[in-house]
Amino acid sequence: MPARPTAIDALPRAVRYQDGVLYVLDQRRLPTAVVIETCQSAEEVERAIRELRVRGAPAIGIAAAWGLAVELEHTQVADAASLREHMLSWAQRLRSARPTAVNLAWAVDRMMAKLWATAGDRQELFTALRAEAQSIEDEDRAICQAIGRHGLELLRPGCGVLTHCNAGSLAVSERGTALAPLYAAGEQGMPMRIFADETRPVLQGARLTAFELGQAGLDVTLICDNMAASLVAEGAIDLVLVGTDRVTANGDVVNKIGTLGVAILARHFGIPFYVACPSSTFDAATATGADVEIEERDAREVTHMAGIAIAPAGVKVRNPAFDVTPADLVTGIITEHGIARAPLSSNLRRLLAA
Amino acid sequence: MPARPTAIDALPRAVRYQDGVLYVLDQRRLPTAVVIETCQSAEEVERAIRELRVRGAPAIGIAAAWGLAVELEHTQVADAASLREHMLSWAQRLRSARPTAVNLAWAVDRMMAKLWATAGDRQELFTALRAEAQSIEDEDRAICQAIGRHGLELLRPGCGVLTHCNAGSLAVSERGTALAPLYAAGEQGMPMRIFADETRPVLQGARLTAFELGQAGLDVTLICDNMAASLVAEGAIDLVLVGTDRVTANGDVVNKIGTLGVAILARHFGIPFYVACPSSTFDAATATGADVEIEERDAREVTHMAGIAIAPAGVKVRNPAFDVTPADLVTGIITEHGIARAPLSSNLRRLLAA
Repeated sequence: MPARPTAIDALPRAVRYQDGVLYVLDQRRLPTAVVIETCQSAEEVERAIRELRVRGAPAIGIAAAWGLAVELEHTQVADAASLREHMLSWAQRLRSARPTAVNLAWAVDRMMAKLWATAGDRQELFTALRAEAQSIEDEDRAICQAIGRHGLELLRPGCGVLTHCNAGSLAVSERGTALAPLYAAGEQGMPMRIFADETRPVLQGARLTAFELGQAGLDVTLICDNMAASLVAEGAIDLVLVGTDRVTANGDVVNKIGTLGVAILARHFGIPFYVACPSSTFDAATATGADVEIEERDAREVTHMAGIAIAPAGVKVRNPAFDVTPADLVTGIITEHGIARAPLSSNLRRLLAA
Repeated sequence: MPARPTAIDALPRAVRYQDGVLYVLDQRRLPTAVVIETCQSAEEVERAIRELRVRGAPAIGIAAAWGLAVELEHTQVADAASLREHMLSWAQRLRSARPTAVNLAWAVDRMMAKLWATAGDRQELFTALRAEAQSIEDEDRAICQAIGRHGLELLRPGCGVLTHCNAGSLAVSERGTALAPLYAAGEQGMPMRIFADETRPVLQGARLTAFELGQAGLDVTLICDNMAASLVAEGAIDLVLVGTDRVTANGDVVNKIGTLGVAILARHFGIPFYVACPSSTFDAATATGADVEIEERDAREVTHMAGIAIAPAGVKVRNPAFDVTPADLVTGIITEHGIARAPLSSNLRRLLAA
C-alpha cells in the first residue's frame, strides 16, 4: 500500500523559541482559533503553564526550560550573585506552576544544574541555558519518534484505537507520546479508526486531539467520555493508547482524570491498555500513585462552558485533574527504549537501566 | 433524628395539565431559566418530546398521553370516522417521537385502547381520554412513592450515592425513580452524600439532577462523568442508583449513555449497582438489550455547547443516546413491587407477576 499523504509536519507547535522570544500556542483557544502568544519572561511562561495555554507534561517541561532561558536573556538583574538568586526564585515558581507533572520539575532542575555548572558572564550563562533548553526540546523530539516506532508494533491495519485527553503533538515538541504510534502508522498509510474521548472538563480530546489528528489527515471520531464503554462493547475498539503525567516506582499511572475509567473498561472487555511516555515521566522516587498529590482545579471548569453556566449556581463540585490507574490495569508502557510489560515495576526499571 | 425540612414538594413538575392546556417545563433551559411552555395540540407535544423539552421515560409517556387528550380536545376534525383516523395518525407520530423509551409506546397504546373502547360523542371521548391520562399520571406518582419506599432499605446514614443522568422528579410525575429513595431518605433527615454525573452530551445530571436535589435541600456534588471511577476508588461511593428507559426480558438495562461505564466500574470496585424503574419499563417482548434500537443523535450535541463550537468544524462524531448494561452487572432492580435481584430475568418476572 502506498504511503498516503499526511500533513503531520504542518502541525502547529506548542512552544517555539526564536530570537529571544518564546512563542506559545494558546491551546485554550483551539480548535476555533489559532492564537500564538509571545513570552519574554519567566513570569509570562509561568502564567502560560498555570493557565493551561500550554499543557501536556513534556511541553510544560520544555516551556519551563525556555522560560528560564528567556528570563536570563531579558532580566534587568545585573550583578552575578543577585542573578543566580533571581533565577533560583523563578525556578521555584516555575517548578510549582503545576503540581502533578514530573517533567516540569525535571526540566527546571536540569536547567538549574546547567546554570550552577556554568561559569562566566551573563552572555555565557545565557548561551549555556539556551543550549540546554534546545537539548531538552531536541531530545524530546527524538523520544517521540522512538515511542512512535515502538508503539507501531501494536497496531494492525483496520484496528480501532481509543485515546483519552491529548498526548499528541500539542503536548510535546513533536508528534506526541500516545499519538506518536498513530502518526507513524498514518505515514505508512495504515488504515485505522481512532476514537478521541472529549475529556471533560477542559475538553483536550475534543479541542486538541480531534484537531491535530484531523489536521494530519487521520480518521478520527470524537466521542463523549461516557460513550467509550459502549463503543468497546460493540467491538469498535481494539486497544487503548494514552499518555501519562507520571509513572510511579510501582508502575501506577497518573494521568488526566478519566484514564482510570478507561483502564477499568479495557480490563472488563479484555482489550489491551497501553500508556506511552518518555522515560523522564518515570518517577522512581515516588512509591505508588497514592503518594502523588492530585491537583483539584476550579469548580468553574465543571460548571461553566465558554463562560456559560451549565449547572445550578453555587452547586458543590469535585474537580480532580488527574486520577491514578493502578499498575495491574496497565498492559504495557511504551517508552523511547521499548515497551515494558507486566510486572511493570521491575520491567520498567530494567528497560530504563538498559 | 428529627426530619429535616425539605423543599421536595416545591419541585417544579415536568408536565401539568389544566383547563385544556398541557404546561411543559422546558428542561433544556434549566438550571439557568425556568421556562414553561403551553401545548394545545399533539403536534406541540410531539415536538416537546422530540426536542427534549420533556425527557425521562415516564414523563415522556405522561406527556404523550396528555398530548392525545389535548389533541382530541382542540382538533377541528369533526366527523367520527375521520376523528379516530386523525387520532391514530397522531398516536403513531407520538409513538415514534423517541425510539428507545418503552413507556412512550406503552402510554400511547393505553390511550388508544381507551379511545377504541369508548363509545359516544367527541365530548365523551375526550372525557375518557382525559381520565386515562390522569390515571397514567396518578399511577406514576404512586409508583414513584413505592420505589422510594423500597429503595430506602438500601441506604444507610452517611452513605455515598452515585447517580447518572436524571431519573428524578423532572423525569416523572413525582419524585423520580432513581432519586425517589434519596428524597425518601432526605425526608427522614438521613445524612447522605449524593454525587451526580453531569451526563454528557446533554448534561441532564448537571442541569437537572444537581438542580432538583439542590432545590430539595439534599447534599449533592456535581462531577464530570469521567471522575466517577476516581471517586469510587477513593471510597466516596457506596452504591450506584440509576434509572432506565427499558429493561429487556433477560434483565438487560437500556439507559442513558454512560450507564454501562458506571456499571462496569461498580463491578470492578465491588459496590452495588441498582436500577430503579416502574414495572411498565420492563419490556418482556424484547429478548435482550442487543435487540433494542439505540437512538443516535445529532453530532452537534457533542460538538457544540450553548451554541459554541468546542470541537473542530466537521469532525466525525458518534453520539449514541443510550447504552445497554448487561443483566449480570446489575445488582438489583427497584420497582414499585419491590427489589428484584439476580438472576434478574426470573426474579423480575416473579416480582411483576405477584
